[in-house]
This record gives sequence, C-alpha cells and structure tokens, in this order.
Amino acid sequence: MEVTQITSTHNEGIKHLVRLRERREREKEQLTVLEGYRELTRADEYGMVLTEAWFSPELFLGENEFPLLERLNAKGVRLFQVPPHLLTKVTYRDRPEGLVAVARMLKHELSGIPVRENGLYLLAESIEKPGNLGSMLRSADAAGVDGLIICDRQTDIYNPNVIRASTGALFSVPLAETDNESALAWLKEHRILSIATTPHTDKCYTDIDMRGPVAIVMGTEQTGLTDFWLENADLPAVIPMLGKIDSLNVATATTILLYEAARQRGFRRKD
Amino acid sequence: MEVTQITSTHNEGIKHLVRLRERREREKEQLTVLEGYRELTRADEYGMVLTEAWFSPELFLGENEFPLLERLNAKGVRLFQVPPHLLTKVTYRDRPEGLVAVARMLKHELSGIPVRENGLYLLAESIEKPGNLGSMLRSADAAGVDGLIICDRQTDIYNPNVIRASTGALFSVPLAETDNESALAWLKEHRILSIATTPHTDKCYTDIDMRGPVAIVMGTEQTGLTDFWLENADLPAVIPMLGKIDSLNVATATTILLYEAARQRGFRRKD
Repeated sequence: MEVTQITSTHNEGIKHLVRLRERREREKEQLTVLEGYRELTRADEYGMVLTEAWFSPELFLGENEFPLLERLNAKGVRLFQVPPHLLTKVTYRDRPEGLVAVARMLKHELSGIPVRENGLYLLAESIEKPGNLGSMLRSADAAGVDGLIICDRQTDIYNPNVIRASTGALFSVPLAETDNESALAWLKEHRILSIATTPHTDKCYTDIDMRGPVAIVMGTEQTGLTDFWLENADLPAVIPMLGKIDSLNVATATTILLYEAARQRGFRRKD
Repeated sequence: MEVTQITSTHNEGIKHLVRLRERREREKEQLTVLEGYRELTRADEYGMVLTEAWFSPELFLGENEFPLLERLNAKGVRLFQVPPHLLTKVTYRDRPEGLVAVARMLKHELSGIPVRENGLYLLAESIEKPGNLGSMLRSADAAGVDGLIICDRQTDIYNPNVIRASTGALFSVPLAETDNESALAWLKEHRILSIATTPHTDKCYTDIDMRGPVAIVMGTEQTGLTDFWLENADLPAVIPMLGKIDSLNVATATTILLYEAARQRGFRRKD
C-alpha cells in the first residue's frame, strides 16, 4: 500500500479538499467529497470512481478501514495520511471517522434510467433541501424504485448532506437530471403512468392501480407541483390527512406513495 | 394591549429566556420556549398555557402577529417588545420571525391518552433525535393516531427542535411519557394489539389486520427494539426492503406502518 504523508496545512491537496466544500468548485471540477467508511465503501461498490483518499488512523472507528484503503489503492486510488487536526479541518461532518475521499461525479442522463416491465419510478420536480433528497433516495432504494428523475433541480445532488442522508442510496438508485418536458416525453414514450401527488383532488392514492409501469410525481417542499405536472400527469392522487396539522414532509409523502406501490406489487424483488 | 418595552440585555426576563435554552433549566422550571407565528398559534389553539411573549415588529413576516398578540394579552399573557438584536440573541432558530413565547410544559401521563374503540396508537421505546420525534409526531397527526406513548425516553420532548419538526403536532397529538412495564400493562388492560416493528421476522406488516385497536411499537434509531418488546408485543412485523441499502429512518418506517393502518381503516376521520 503506497501512502504519502502530509503534515502541512499549506499542502495543495488539502487546499483542494477545502475548495471542494463549495458547490461551485465541485461543479466546475465535476468532483465531490465522500466521508466515512460506509460512504466510501458503498460509492466504490456501486461504481463511483474515487481518485484519492485522505485518512487519519487515529480517528478510525473500526478495523475495516485499512483493508478498504488497500482495496482502493489496488484500484489506483492515491492515499494520503494526515494528522487528525488536518483531516478535521477539511471534513464536512462533525465526526469524519478518519476517512475522506475525492470522487468523480457521474453523468445523470435519462438514457441511464433502466426501462423495466412494470417499472416503478420517482419523479421530483425539484427538491430544495439536501436532507429531503437524501431521505427520498433512501426510501426509493427500499421500495425498489427503478429510477429517480429530477426535473429543474434546485438541490446540488452531490452536496455532502445529500450523500449522508441517503446513506449510500445516491449511488444505488439510478438517477437522471433533466427538465419537465424531456421527462414527460420519456414517460409517454415508455407508456409509464404518471401520478401527480397533490392536495387538489379527491382521488385517494390507494384507489389507483400501481401494478403496471408507474411514476410517482412529487413537487417542492413549499409550493407542491407546478401546473405543468398538474395538467400533464395522467392522474392526480391525494394522501388523506386525518389530523389537525394537515401537512406532511415531502420525503414522508413520497415514502407513503412508494410503499403503497410496493404493497400492490406484492413486495417483489427485482432480478 | 399592554406592552412593556425592554431595551437592555441585562434585563432579567432576557436572561431567563437565554437560560431556557438549556434542557436542565427547562425541566427545573417546567417551562419551554416557542418561536414563530405558527408555533405560538397552534400551542395556544391546543391548550398550552403561555405565560409571556416577546416580540420585535421589525422581524414580523406578515400582518397576523399583532392580532395574535392581542388575543394572547387578553388571556393574561404578558407582552414585552424588544429591539431585533435583543430578540435574535435569545432565539433558537435562524429566522425567529419576531415572536418568542414562554409556555408551561404539560404533564404527559398514560391516563391522558384517550381510549377509543378501534384506537390507533404509536409507542416509541425511545427516540434519540429531536428531528425524528418531531417527524413521528407529524405523521402520527396525519394518520389520525389517538396517542403517542414514549417509554424510557432519551429525547427532551420540549426541545425546540422537536417542536419545530413536529410543526405543531407536539400539541395536537395526545402524548404520554412512561416506562415499558406501565405501557405494556396499559395496552393489555385496554386490549390493544401491540405490533413490534423489527427486521427479525418474516411477517409482513401488510399481512396484519390493523382494523381493531392497535399500537405500533418502534425502537431506537440505532439498535431497534429491546428484548422487552420483542418478547412481550403481540405480533412482530417487518417492512420489506427491496433495495441495496437495507435501512429506513425510524420516522419513515413509522409513517409506513401508520399509513397502512389508516388505509385498512378506510382513512376514516375521528369524530
């Protein structure tokens, strides 16, 4: 295992990691930063290309970190060992677990979304909060979603808070970023039933047959779906609310719809 | 409307508000702090007793704040107007919306949970993160839960982050704090079917008849349910996970169970 020792804060690699905390810099370089054993392992497992890993053994939580670093090194990932105070300087999390990596962003195009018989898709018109997008990815993974399509996104999908909240689902769920018109054309081309989640209907989500190919369409946290989807989706659906507060978080609402689809499909695993 | 003007940071009331940011102080005095128009409105609506309100009109977001303050004042709530820099000094949120109030904590005893025919209850063994408890309260409200029972709680339920994440459901959902043994005795006394959510079973949650009186029992974020509930609950239930990540957030899992119960019950509103 080849390791470079770095001890100076003036090191160019350290400065680079600090710059990658900014969205603009991440998008310019098409790179992002992963933190912690689980994220690095899952990113590697699901095909992200890591370019370098930085670590402080003093901060490791377990004994699997060195074997992981060895596997990464064997794939050509450069390794840099730094003292803990340097690593914590560049990390996003409170507890960085002694491991940080730089990874190449993937291209997320509609053509990368698999078209399956009776596929289940999630379409988010735009999601503002990284934590919500991360939660939606996690539920999408659990419910067996074949792809997440984000239209007119506000959220930086490689924001470290998305990666963290998704607990790895950012890498495991096929993802596309596009615009409303292209997404609608794709759904129509593949004869996928689109279901617009909205309070402005009497049609209960459980009264819709979701056993065929369907896409659950969700709006933003603040304002819900735009007219584009309210007018162009095949069906509207409402989640009844029986209490006094009359609002659900967008990730929570997404989960309710996806698990109803999964239930109707008999919780069948994909091949 | 009687208003006292305060301009000094050395004012005893201001110092008191600052002290109430600490859990120990809140529990000692049995007081908590509410922030923002919506929280104050809902707390008042659902029967919390507010003792004083502090405000800065310069930070108001709308035009409903003065009528609210007038209503509160008419009920005996003392009003204090302060300059914005003083108000932001005592608030918990980034955007305090110009309004802060001190409220008396309610007693949360099992005897306060309504026993209804075919009641739906949520039991949380303990919840560590304020945001999760807040989300669970919000879903409980939406799914028409008759009461939330917290056993051996870790979370300070009057933590301002719980109040915020619950968007008011902390006040609208009947709540009890107790221990495992008392909760189990209460469930048995009222012949409520307890369903322990756990990965250690093959019994799918959708295969359980939840139309009668039921309590959904959830464990902690990290370790799930203890043996106490795995052994003493009437039935176990698993949420199938069809993806690669194999984990759901506790609030998300709670929502899935509660909405399945609501679905089986035909989304009937309570009287």
